[in-house]
Amino acid sequence: MRAAALEELADRGYAALTIESVARRAGVHKTSVYRHWTDREGLVLDALTTNVAGGLVIPDTGHFETDLREFARGLVAWLTSPPGNAVVQATVADASRVPEIADLQRRFYAGRLQRDEVMIRRAIDRGEIPADTDAAEVIKALVGPIYLRLLITAEPIDASTADRATELALAAVRAGVLRSR
Amino acid sequence: MRAAALEELADRGYAALTIESVARRAGVHKTSVYRHWTDREGLVLDALTTNVAGGLVIPDTGHFETDLREFARGLVAWLTSPPGNAVVQATVADASRVPEIADLQRRFYAGRLQRDEVMIRRAIDRGEIPADTDAAEVIKALVGPIYLRLLITAEPIDASTADRATELALAAVRAGVLRSR
Repeated sequence: MRAAALEELADRGYAALTIESVARRAGVHKTSVYRHWTDREGLVLDALTTNVAGGLVIPDTGHFETDLREFARGLVAWLTSPPGNAVVQATVADASRVPEIADLQRRFYAGRLQRDEVMIRRAIDRGEIPADTDAAEVIKALVGPIYLRLLITAEPIDASTADRATELALAAVRAGVLRSR
Repeated sequence: MRAAALEELADRGYAALTIESVARRAGVHKTSVYRHWTDREGLVLDALTTNVAGGLVIPDTGHFETDLREFARGLVAWLTSPPGNAVVQATVADASRVPEIADLQRRFYAGRLQRDEVMIRRAIDRGEIPADTDAAEVIKALVGPIYLRLLITAEPIDASTADRATELALAAVRAGVLRSR
């Protein structure tokens, strides 16, 4: 049913998505959906989170720079794949017109950032970067240039985009501008 | 008629916008619109570009860091104002579902970046930063964290977001990771 929810999101957007429409697409009765999720927001959040967890691996190479680079390359690969594209569409496309989506989007990305921050905490534990490095800010410095090209300048993104974003984030960490305040 | 085009964009999106609907909103006959623009893409691009030119001033303080900071603060102020918000909605909200918009968006932001790059060229001319600094990459490093918060993490943006983005871009320029390749 999560897959049906994502397909529904990608095809018709969050505004048009209902528990009924997801049930219809999945070929089940709507009571089967309600058995697992109390409302469409819970269903969509779960579908998005599960999709990301499966598609976007957090590297653990034992080296901060390599972890960042592999993560950024993985993000580019995922964002340019059909499931990743569906997630971005679902969370961004309608957010400006449907206030409810802005809240869903905030919860979804807050959860994702939190999950990604383990890379930075491991680097702190290894003594590679200062202990007061702001993990969320590092992730945002890393993914910012990638999303900017995807959503704003509409430029193609590839491994070299990821590598450049990695250098940017690393330079900022090393310059000490991404510390907790 | 440009104002009517922006209102139409913000309210109904690019997919629903026609020369006829803009003329109706502006209270003129559609032939009056066609006298100035040959098609809706030209009209929308002109409306967006004029709006940005009026709302987003490029600072010229004689100092690179101050220029970047003022520009970033101005961008935040504009993005959180009704006209700026309308532009973002118009270019981003439907781009993933309407292929024609992706092209419009690419042309609009390419033009905008080119206009903003004068800040970097002036800093190069003053000898503040290396001559091979990639102007477009500096602007993207600067605005990336701001758009990421606006469109992806859905966090509030304010002057401190702008200042942090300025530090990030400066650190990257100083570390030499934003040079032409």
